[in-house]
Amino acid sequence: MIRVNPHHAALPARYLFAEVADRVRAFRRRRPEVELISLGIGDVTEPLPPACIRAFHAGVDELAAAASFRGYGPEQGYDFLREAIARHDFQAQGVHVDADEVFVSDGSKCDIGNFQELFATDIRVAIPDPVYPVYVDTNLMAGRVSAGKGNHRGGLVDLPCPAANGYAPQLPQEPVDLIYLCSPNNPTGATMTRPQLQQWVEYARAQRALILFDAAYEAFIRDDALPHSIYEIPGARELAVEFRSYSKTAGFTGVRCAYTVVPRDCGAWQDDGTRVSLHGLWNRRQSTKFNGVSYPVQRAAEAIYTPQGRQQVRALADGYLANARIIREGITSLGLRCAGGDNSPYVWIDAGRDSWEFFGLLLEQAGVVCTPGAGFGPGGRGHVRISAFNQRARVELAMQRIAHVLG
Amino acid sequence: MIRVNPHHAALPARYLFAEVADRVRAFRRRRPEVELISLGIGDVTEPLPPACIRAFHAGVDELAAAASFRGYGPEQGYDFLREAIARHDFQAQGVHVDADEVFVSDGSKCDIGNFQELFATDIRVAIPDPVYPVYVDTNLMAGRVSAGKGNHRGGLVDLPCPAANGYAPQLPQEPVDLIYLCSPNNPTGATMTRPQLQQWVEYARAQRALILFDAAYEAFIRDDALPHSIYEIPGARELAVEFRSYSKTAGFTGVRCAYTVVPRDCGAWQDDGTRVSLHGLWNRRQSTKFNGVSYPVQRAAEAIYTPQGRQQVRALADGYLANARIIREGITSLGLRCAGGDNSPYVWIDAGRDSWEFFGLLLEQAGVVCTPGAGFGPGGRGHVRISAFNQRARVELAMQRIAHVLG
Repeated sequence: MIRVNPHHAALPARYLFAEVADRVRAFRRRRPEVELISLGIGDVTEPLPPACIRAFHAGVDELAAAASFRGYGPEQGYDFLREAIARHDFQAQGVHVDADEVFVSDGSKCDIGNFQELFATDIRVAIPDPVYPVYVDTNLMAGRVSAGKGNHRGGLVDLPCPAANGYAPQLPQEPVDLIYLCSPNNPTGATMTRPQLQQWVEYARAQRALILFDAAYEAFIRDDALPHSIYEIPGARELAVEFRSYSKTAGFTGVRCAYTVVPRDCGAWQDDGTRVSLHGLWNRRQSTKFNGVSYPVQRAAEAIYTPQGRQQVRALADGYLANARIIREGITSLGLRCAGGDNSPYVWIDAGRDSWEFFGLLLEQAGVVCTPGAGFGPGGRGHVRISAFNQRARVELAMQRIAHVLG
Repeated sequence: MIRVNPHHAALPARYLFAEVADRVRAFRRRRPEVELISLGIGDVTEPLPPACIRAFHAGVDELAAAASFRGYGPEQGYDFLREAIARHDFQAQGVHVDADEVFVSDGSKCDIGNFQELFATDIRVAIPDPVYPVYVDTNLMAGRVSAGKGNHRGGLVDLPCPAANGYAPQLPQEPVDLIYLCSPNNPTGATMTRPQLQQWVEYARAQRALILFDAAYEAFIRDDALPHSIYEIPGARELAVEFRSYSKTAGFTGVRCAYTVVPRDCGAWQDDGTRVSLHGLWNRRQSTKFNGVSYPVQRAAEAIYTPQGRQQVRALADGYLANARIIREGITSLGLRCAGGDNSPYVWIDAGRDSWEFFGLLLEQAGVVCTPGAGFGPGGRGHVRISAFNQRARVELAMQRIAHVLG
């Protein structure tokens, strides 16, 4: 008899996002005359940079002729892209990452969801609270932590991110083996400082732990004092894997391209105490279960690193950051406390009441959709996330409506 | 201390394919004047169909303007593609598959590699021998079977595919829970008949087993009596998942698009005997660990189903099948026994000697690269696979050289 994986079958459904959709649908039925503005979802709205469009077309044209046709590419990504990434995103910033340490993929969600496969099921996993739900869900699916303790996080070591710590995660009180960090954070917008990151690297070294560093929002960092990569911290290469994405940077949410850096020095241990290279394990995992990213997509991603591409991508991020500033200033002027929105496209608001109640208020009275913080873990209660991913005029209109309701 | 998954760490390296590459490299160094012809790898060589190129460009152009821009798409694939698949690949053939049972992905290798995640680790897994190595490797990685019994298949239930059975798999002698079938088979080219498939569906029903049916080469079937889909067999919807790919059909190996059908009636059991829908479990798995296929790629795939697209794709497969016929007839005329090559792009040759020895003979004396059968499992010993994926003139030249050596 074919039996299901009990950890998959026991997985709690994500009621929150379904309920957000349900409530929005119900509102639309009741008040069809209201033009809703969505600042809920973290999806981009601006078109692809022209440099990427041009390269994307050229890549497609290569597949139209036998002489330039390409079939299976390397599972790790084409050298032209791996080299551009290593050179521009790291070496030009004085950070040591080699091209063959870069694994190109179709998305950070996949990579960060799959990476835990490389580890034993009985390790202790530390995950910030609140945070992007994929870290918790994929560890639940792996049977590494158990579901159903009410908050869906039983068995995990929660890393609280209190307002007093700038919504950054605090070191755990008990020993842990695998640590997820997300900076700039989704949903709080908090960006870890160099001393904070240093503290985590030292902690991981002492514990022989590994850090999975999710830097999907790195392109929004504008404060020169803040680190863009965990590899800016000495010693991090031995104990950290970094995830980056073009989704928010270059508007690639529908195009699908990201990458993961696994330094050759990065390792984990076998039960007998032998140290094993994670580079080799990830390479084997990707070669076995993945077949590389679409060739024209890789050409489009490569174009991000041309002079025009860099300028266009920077302008895209600047546009969303200007939206974030409008949101942050609007919220602050209403007397509410918030974080993020300066080096991040997310503004995290202390609602001063239940997050569902605040969500309902903005929906019903302002016609604005946000995301209740409770959906990112119990630590998100009493907060909502407002996203800067929308067109400028829509963001301005949303903030006028919110000011009218809360002002 | 962060400890590795012992099943990943114990995974044997795939020496075969590395060794093929090593031997080819060594030969090139020794004999740089020989122009090698590769009939080894199963990768297409012909350009994308013009209908796909046109739709691919149009999809890219939509991403260039704010009004038509699309960000995150549905993880399951866009409705336009799911509906085209259900209608043309199934309903038009009288087979019941609904659009929402189709999950679009970036490759069959990923899907068939990931699908085993849904099942308990202590089920018994039956895999044909020889076969596409991903089935075995992903079960090794999951700890479901143990490595290192010399043939790398310890713990699995092998399904022998003897010449006497047309190289099709035979029913196991012991009970099994999960069954992998591949038809047309890679590497043997054997295509299962309707009675054979019926026998497997009846066996699975009696055992309450599940069949993972890999139909990646379905487009090469030309014999009207042979089933294209397992769902042509009554009752199969309850116990079979089908995997299909555009890689070989439409030359998408570098473009990346495939799909998996999980019927709503298809189920597996919990330990307490409750039947669980696999559709819901797979949907949750994909929503959590995958973010959908690149939008322009889905538009290119949709174009396969236009009248021009269908004609162009058919012509592509016909071209490779004509190559396969040349290979099969050439091999047969040399007095060697072979299978496949009629409803499949692979010709499977009984080498009458060690598969490495035969590989070496073709490489050294004919300058032709094939694949030693032993790489597909111990049952592949004494055989080699010759692939029809190359340009016509190259295939003809290869067969002339082989005839000169073996004739």
